[in-house]
Amino acid sequence: MIELNFSKGLVAAVILDETTNDVLMVGFMDQAAYDKTLATGLVTFFSRTKNRLWTKGETSGHTLELRRMWIDCDQDSLLITVKANGPTCHTGNRTCFYTEVEVPHAT
Amino acid sequence: MIELNFSKGLVAAVILDETTNDVLMVGFMDQAAYDKTLATGLVTFFSRTKNRLWTKGETSGHTLELRRMWIDCDQDSLLITVKANGPTCHTGNRTCFYTEVEVPHAT
Repeated sequence: MIELNFSKGLVAAVILDETTNDVLMVGFMDQAAYDKTLATGLVTFFSRTKNRLWTKGETSGHTLELRRMWIDCDQDSLLITVKANGPTCHTGNRTCFYTEVEVPHAT
Repeated sequence: MIELNFSKGLVAAVILDETTNDVLMVGFMDQAAYDKTLATGLVTFFSRTKNRLWTKGETSGHTLELRRMWIDCDQDSLLITVKANGPTCHTGNRTCFYTEVEVPHAT
């Protein structure tokens, strides 16, 4: 069993679409969110806004079905591939990262 | 100019290899780290361990050259593609996410 490292706070979870490999969103997990994600197969975060567990799609139906998971060298970040049921972003976009930022040094 | 949203704490930054699109690491930025990243073209984090700005590769030489950047719908997460000079992980791995977690519900 992997032990998550919460010494620096909540664990960041990067969500990738299993087919396109696009980053869909970033969320955060506490131990309960991680345990619920594994137990249910539906990605569940600790919402810093709602201050409670939040299963993505619990109201919209746009759930994220857990496929594969990796943990980083510090055990404080997760990478999760999912089957996304519907658009992930609450704006209706497929991903939350739909706004490009102009970068002066881009080559 | 994009305004970052720090209402929930530091901004998470997901680092992607520009050629493979693999997630290399996740770091965090405050305003100064973000500004320095844009000003220098080298990805700079606010290290929660060191409690100071940390330009990735400042000691190892394994820098991350900024290429493109996206911000999420809440303006509190960044997605950054980079040219990675050397392995990103301090363990010598190309990515920090080299450990797969067994997932009971994987299909």
